[in-house]
Amino acid sequence: MAAAALANGDVRAGGGGAVPRPTNPMVTPLLTDLYQFSMAYAYWKAGKHLDRAVFDLYFRKSPFAGEFTVFGGLEECIRFIANFKFKEEEINFLRAALPTCEDGFFEYLSSIDCSDVEVYAIPEGSAVFPKVPLMIIEGPVAVVQLLETPFLSLVNYASLVTTNAARHRLVAGKPKNLLEFGLRRAQGPDGGISASRYSYMGGFDATSNVAAGRLFGIPIRGTHSHAFVSSFLGLDEIIDKALSSSDGSNKCEDFVSLVQNWLVKIQDASSLRGSFGETNQSELAAFTSYALAFPNSFLALVDTYDVMRSGVPNFCAVALALNDMGYKAVGIRLDSGDLAYLSIETRKFFCAIEKEFGVVGFGKTNITASNDLNEETIDALNKQGHEVDSFGIGTYLVTCYAQAALGCVFKLVEINKQPRIKLSEDVTKVSIPCKKRCYRLYGKEGYPLVDIMTGQDEPSPKVGERILCRHPFIESKRAHVVPQHVEELLKCYWPGHS
Amino acid sequence: MAAAALANGDVRAGGGGAVPRPTNPMVTPLLTDLYQFSMAYAYWKAGKHLDRAVFDLYFRKSPFAGEFTVFGGLEECIRFIANFKFKEEEINFLRAALPTCEDGFFEYLSSIDCSDVEVYAIPEGSAVFPKVPLMIIEGPVAVVQLLETPFLSLVNYASLVTTNAARHRLVAGKPKNLLEFGLRRAQGPDGGISASRYSYMGGFDATSNVAAGRLFGIPIRGTHSHAFVSSFLGLDEIIDKALSSSDGSNKCEDFVSLVQNWLVKIQDASSLRGSFGETNQSELAAFTSYALAFPNSFLALVDTYDVMRSGVPNFCAVALALNDMGYKAVGIRLDSGDLAYLSIETRKFFCAIEKEFGVVGFGKTNITASNDLNEETIDALNKQGHEVDSFGIGTYLVTCYAQAALGCVFKLVEINKQPRIKLSEDVTKVSIPCKKRCYRLYGKEGYPLVDIMTGQDEPSPKVGERILCRHPFIESKRAHVVPQHVEELLKCYWPGHS
Repeated sequence: MAAAALANGDVRAGGGGAVPRPTNPMVTPLLTDLYQFSMAYAYWKAGKHLDRAVFDLYFRKSPFAGEFTVFGGLEECIRFIANFKFKEEEINFLRAALPTCEDGFFEYLSSIDCSDVEVYAIPEGSAVFPKVPLMIIEGPVAVVQLLETPFLSLVNYASLVTTNAARHRLVAGKPKNLLEFGLRRAQGPDGGISASRYSYMGGFDATSNVAAGRLFGIPIRGTHSHAFVSSFLGLDEIIDKALSSSDGSNKCEDFVSLVQNWLVKIQDASSLRGSFGETNQSELAAFTSYALAFPNSFLALVDTYDVMRSGVPNFCAVALALNDMGYKAVGIRLDSGDLAYLSIETRKFFCAIEKEFGVVGFGKTNITASNDLNEETIDALNKQGHEVDSFGIGTYLVTCYAQAALGCVFKLVEINKQPRIKLSEDVTKVSIPCKKRCYRLYGKEGYPLVDIMTGQDEPSPKVGERILCRHPFIESKRAHVVPQHVEELLKCYWPGHS
Repeated sequence: MAAAALANGDVRAGGGGAVPRPTNPMVTPLLTDLYQFSMAYAYWKAGKHLDRAVFDLYFRKSPFAGEFTVFGGLEECIRFIANFKFKEEEINFLRAALPTCEDGFFEYLSSIDCSDVEVYAIPEGSAVFPKVPLMIIEGPVAVVQLLETPFLSLVNYASLVTTNAARHRLVAGKPKNLLEFGLRRAQGPDGGISASRYSYMGGFDATSNVAAGRLFGIPIRGTHSHAFVSSFLGLDEIIDKALSSSDGSNKCEDFVSLVQNWLVKIQDASSLRGSFGETNQSELAAFTSYALAFPNSFLALVDTYDVMRSGVPNFCAVALALNDMGYKAVGIRLDSGDLAYLSIETRKFFCAIEKEFGVVGFGKTNITASNDLNEETIDALNKQGHEVDSFGIGTYLVTCYAQAALGCVFKLVEINKQPRIKLSEDVTKVSIPCKKRCYRLYGKEGYPLVDIMTGQDEPSPKVGERILCRHPFIESKRAHVVPQHVEELLKCYWPGHS
């Protein structure tokens, strides 16, 4: 990662070309609010544009009524500033948008980059907490102001969806396979791409999103939809019925008949008799056809017609035929109905097949569930009991439906070494002035105890020394801590000239 | 717009180059779910890939517990299919992702474009209703399947945010100025850009987003933030104090003193006396400095310290000084506190200034309000009474906080002229089979009465003829209608070869 490389000092400030451009080519210096330019002009006009300013980027409250946030988006911010430079056509657009501004201002804009800017940040993927800056940005006030909106736009959603993914991982538990399926419901195309990237950062195993897989090396997953199942009219449609065995040693000339034979055997099996009658033949054709295309990775969506009366028996017939040819079917996906009940019934069916036909391990065939899953529904499934191995999660994950925005802000805390504050009648909105240093203090068992902020020039906390930690606004919230380990939270990711 | 041009038949199918690429360069044929490719392979392997399929793109329920949706995203879909072609490196990625697929499939993928596809759609920006297809896509099943995810990704959020903007316009009322301020809180950079574009489509007047202004010709607005105000330490910082008059006829060498003199006059004015004392001097410096930079468009954010005791009097002093020089101040922005109360108090202050100093029209100086506004808060302001002229709306608009996703789906309804259906225990999830034609029927007063769907070959409804309109699933919902005007809803936007 570029950000990591920078933290290791591999890339010098202003080096430019060494750091890749932002992943989304739409992320340019014009991706900002107009007022950043009108302010830049007013600073320039007043001769204040080079005043050295320090801004904190932080949030006031963790999302989803939770106690933590996971920081995402830093690498893209560094890519952005490393390549920050206005193109001539962008300057021309600004000239037309701000027709009363003097020419000298646009010459100034044409000249700027971020070589005078320094960025300190907590590493991406870290658990972070309210009020402690995720990033500290120092530089000429006019330039740093231009970074406000793009930085917030790159950090707010990234951190929100990373946090959401981490919460889904916590509720699903470590052994479950978590798949991000949200591209179609995301807030636009790079909402989808960012969701895939940051869900993976937050603890998901894979995505359905091919573009994200390519861009970020995330494992990609997917098999077929309901449309595939309903596109088949019947088994007659399958022309090429031959399937070679897994080891290539023999060939079944009529895999369709093999499947049909297995379906009859399942129907006649004593422990399954009466549990289903005639299964849907277009579904059987679709499953068989899919198995012929992907004998090594057969996974079937079983709820197009009826899960227990058609989808699961049809799947098992195909899976047992594949088993005859040396292939192991992957499993099924449930996309509607009572997922707890259906997964349990499906598991029983699989176990009965294992017992009836002596296919070792068939009972453990994978069950994936999807359909509007979220933290609450997974928690409810856990409480009811279920047999789901993998969860495919879309809408609620990627749109962060439970809370669709994180409120990171970007506040001036110091200018020309003078502390600055924004007051508010709402105490939670008062900014904390001064350039800061931030530390995470760890206790005896190696667990973090508290994050603290100090002024830039205050002594840092020392291992074994008692420190009084005070809440910035609530007098009664204070505690003495004796840290066993002290970690400085913000590292330099963009050193500027110095 | 490309889409409009296509509807007018200006561009032939498969022409390619004539239609611009998607606005976001990340929108490529890989921006889809992996299962679209595994299905395409299974279709290809079964020799079914050229089967002629018809898919409906529709939603099941209008968002925000509302009765309508506004369709957005069509132009981007047409741009996408007009330029649909795999690059060699994309094919190579797919080859690695699907290692068991035969070479012939990748040759097939390399060869495809959308010249065999036809797209019919309701015009973008139309009010649309559940179950009636927004788009009908017909073509080779393997190709159309590859369009599912990108089309949904381009339509779902676009329609959601257009609808949200239209709802904000309805509650705010026609005369109010609506400004979209959401870039920093949007779900990623093109969540922000799309939000600006589709908010404008839904009835907003302008955006703060410079990139969106440039891409789509949307008016852009913005002045300054709290940081600008708190970056000033005092009036001493202002070096160049001169301001020429609006008509160039004279010059004030010390505009700062002119402002200070006005502040004293306001403090001494009989109707305002005692309403405030000493105002914040760093704020006064910031306002004065901003006015020197933008004398023609002075708008001040007045809540950094105290709206009524500092921000508004400081604004008025600067505005009156500008008035002396022939400039008309634009207004103020409130970004916190009780917006109803503060806007009313500010209006009173403005009116008192008009009366005291005989500045005609000063009482009507613009009041903009921002700070977490949404449909409910604007409705509450309307009920309380307020004096706000312009609303700046961010988070709740662009993230569609009240409902962060629209559930458009893409369902197979016909293949090789055979109707197809997806069943479900949940009747609202059952798809409506067959290729359709859709009409909007209008009554005597020119208002639309109902949208109806018919089979492709059924006779179309005729003006003046009684028609029985039946709900597809609810037997009791039926009505006889005699249309005075019949509009065919879907037009051809991409005609394919035929």
